[in-house]
Amino acid sequence: MINRRTILALLLTAVTATAASPQTQPSDPLPSWNDGPAKTAIVDFVTRVTANGSPQFVPPVERIATFDNDGTLWTEQPVYFQLAFAVDRIKTLAPSHPEWRKKPAFKALLAGDIHRLAGASQKELLELLAAAHSGISTEEFARAVRDWTARARHPRFNRPYTELVYQPMLELLDYLRASGFKTFVVSGGGIEFMRPWMDKVYGIPPEQVVGSSGDVKFQMGPNGKPELMKLPAVEFVDDGPGKPVGINRFIGRRPIFAFGNSDGDLQMLQWTTAGEGARFAGIVHHTDAEREYAYDRQSRIGKLDKALDEATAKHWTVVDMKRDWKTIFPPAK
Amino acid sequence: MINRRTILALLLTAVTATAASPQTQPSDPLPSWNDGPAKTAIVDFVTRVTANGSPQFVPPVERIATFDNDGTLWTEQPVYFQLAFAVDRIKTLAPSHPEWRKKPAFKALLAGDIHRLAGASQKELLELLAAAHSGISTEEFARAVRDWTARARHPRFNRPYTELVYQPMLELLDYLRASGFKTFVVSGGGIEFMRPWMDKVYGIPPEQVVGSSGDVKFQMGPNGKPELMKLPAVEFVDDGPGKPVGINRFIGRRPIFAFGNSDGDLQMLQWTTAGEGARFAGIVHHTDAEREYAYDRQSRIGKLDKALDEATAKHWTVVDMKRDWKTIFPPAK
Repeated sequence: MINRRTILALLLTAVTATAASPQTQPSDPLPSWNDGPAKTAIVDFVTRVTANGSPQFVPPVERIATFDNDGTLWTEQPVYFQLAFAVDRIKTLAPSHPEWRKKPAFKALLAGDIHRLAGASQKELLELLAAAHSGISTEEFARAVRDWTARARHPRFNRPYTELVYQPMLELLDYLRASGFKTFVVSGGGIEFMRPWMDKVYGIPPEQVVGSSGDVKFQMGPNGKPELMKLPAVEFVDDGPGKPVGINRFIGRRPIFAFGNSDGDLQMLQWTTAGEGARFAGIVHHTDAEREYAYDRQSRIGKLDKALDEATAKHWTVVDMKRDWKTIFPPAK
Repeated sequence: MINRRTILALLLTAVTATAASPQTQPSDPLPSWNDGPAKTAIVDFVTRVTANGSPQFVPPVERIATFDNDGTLWTEQPVYFQLAFAVDRIKTLAPSHPEWRKKPAFKALLAGDIHRLAGASQKELLELLAAAHSGISTEEFARAVRDWTARARHPRFNRPYTELVYQPMLELLDYLRASGFKTFVVSGGGIEFMRPWMDKVYGIPPEQVVGSSGDVKFQMGPNGKPELMKLPAVEFVDDGPGKPVGINRFIGRRPIFAFGNSDGDLQMLQWTTAGEGARFAGIVHHTDAEREYAYDRQSRIGKLDKALDEATAKHWTVVDMKRDWKTIFPPAK
C-alpha cells in the first residue's frame, strides 16, 4: 500500500515542518510577563479582536485602549510623583504667597510632611497643584516639567521618576499598538504635567493624554505675542466617575480595553466593559514590597478595594505584580 | 571631440527624460482649486515643511492642522446647521418644558423665526442646544444626530447637510494627511453634534474633533448598566479665545496650520502663527452669492471683520471663494 518512497517523502515533510516551525512562530510580544492567567487573558483578547474571521473581530479604528497612569504605568509611592514635582516649585514660590499657610495641604507640603500630604483629598491635591502652577504660561510650565524630570530622583530607588515605569506595561503598550490599537492615558494626574514626557517614555503623544486640568486663559503677552496662562481654578478632575466623562470628552468613543490599579479606575473599567462585543478590563495589584510596593485596601494612595471586589465578581484580569512580572522597571540608562 | 554616437546617446537620453517627465510629475492634489495666490501659498507651505533638507522642515508628529467647521468646511447659512437639527428636537420636547417660553432664543425657535434666532449670542445658542439635548444619554444623542443627517435637507439646496461640504477643503484635508499632517476640527459647534458624522464625511475621527460641550454625568442606568447623561449646563465654549484654550486642552500642542472663516477664528489663527518656524493661516472669504453665499463684515452668522483686517496686515492667505474655487460642493450622491 505505502511504499518506501512515500514514507520517506512524508518523513522529510514532517522533519522540514518541524524544523521550520520555531522560525515561523512569532517572538513573545510580552517577554517580561510570566506565563499565567494574566498574560494568557491579554494575548487571548488581542487575538480574538484582531484575527481575520474571528466572530469578535473589531476594526482597527475602534481598537481604543485606555490606561491609568499612577500605579498602572509608573510607581505612585511613597506619594504621587506630581507632588514631588510640586514641592520644589511651591517652596520657591511660598514667600510671596502668605495665604497658602492657612490651607492644610499647603501647610503639610511646606513643613515637608509628605505622608500627611498623602492624606489630602484628590481635590485638595489638585487645588494645591493648580495654585502652585498658576501665573505661568503653558509653555513655561512644560519647560519646568521637562527640567524636573531630567533632574529629580526618587527617594528610594535613586533613579529619575520617568525610569520608574513598568517594563511589562511598556511591552503591553507596544504589543497593543503593533496590533492596531490606539493607546491613550486617562489619569487623575494633571494633563500638563504628563504631556511633556509621555511621548518619549510611553510612545503616547500629547493629544492622546487625558487628565485633570486647571483653567487656562488666552491673552496677549507683554511682547504682543499671544500666550495661554494657567489660572488657579481647577477645571476638571479626571478621576473616578470623571474618567468615563473625560474619555467621552476627549476621545469620543468607548474603549474596548482598559487598565487601572485603584478604585479611581472603577468607573472607567465599568464603562469599558459595558459596551457590546469583546471587552478587556485589567487591574495592576501591587503585591511586591521587595521589588516595588505592596498595598491595596488600606492604602491612602492608590486604594484598591471596591474595584478588587468587582474584578473578582466580574472575572476581570488582576495582575499580581509579584507573580506575573519577571521584571518591574526597565534597565537603568 | 564629440562624436555622432555620443550626440545620439545624449539626444536619446533627453528624449526619454522629456517623455518620462509627465508621468513622474505628481498629479494635482487640489484639482478643485483654480491656480492663483491661495493655491500657491498652500502648496508652497506644505512643500517647505515636508521636503527633506528644507530649512523649514517639520517632523511629521508636529504637523498639526486645525480647521474651523461652520463656514470653513461646510456651509453655515441661512443659520448654523446645528440649529436646524435643534428645531426638530425642541419642537418635540417643548410641550413638557413650559419654562422655555420665557427665554428669547427658545421663543424665537418655537415661533419658527429662524432669522431672529440667528441674532442670538453664541452663549444663548449653546444654552438652547444644551437644554434641548439634556436628559438624554450620549449614545442616544449620537443616534439622533445620525438619524437627522440621513433625513434632513437644506432649504435652499435641497440636499443633505453633510453634502454641503466644500469639495476644495475635502481635497485640502486629503492633501495635508497625504503629506503627514494630523487634521483636527476646532469648532464652536457642539462636539457631540459633530463627532457622529465627521469621520465618514471629512476622514476626521471623533478623537480629533474639538468643540463646545455641555456637562456630562456618569451614572448607573435603570438596567444596571453605566451611562453618560447630557446635562443642561454649558461646560465649554470653543469659540474666539476659547479656541486656543480648546487646542491646548485637547491637542496639547500648537498647530502649524490653521484655517477659519470668521472673527471667531481670529485667536486660533493668532495662536498658530505666533509659534516658531513656518506657519500657515488661512481664511475662507464667502464671496459667491450665486454658488453659495456672500457675506463678511455685516453678517450675524460668520462675521468676518477684525480677522479680515488682520489677515491683510499679516499677509495671511484669504481664499476668495468665487475666484479660487472651481466647484463648491461635491457631486450629489
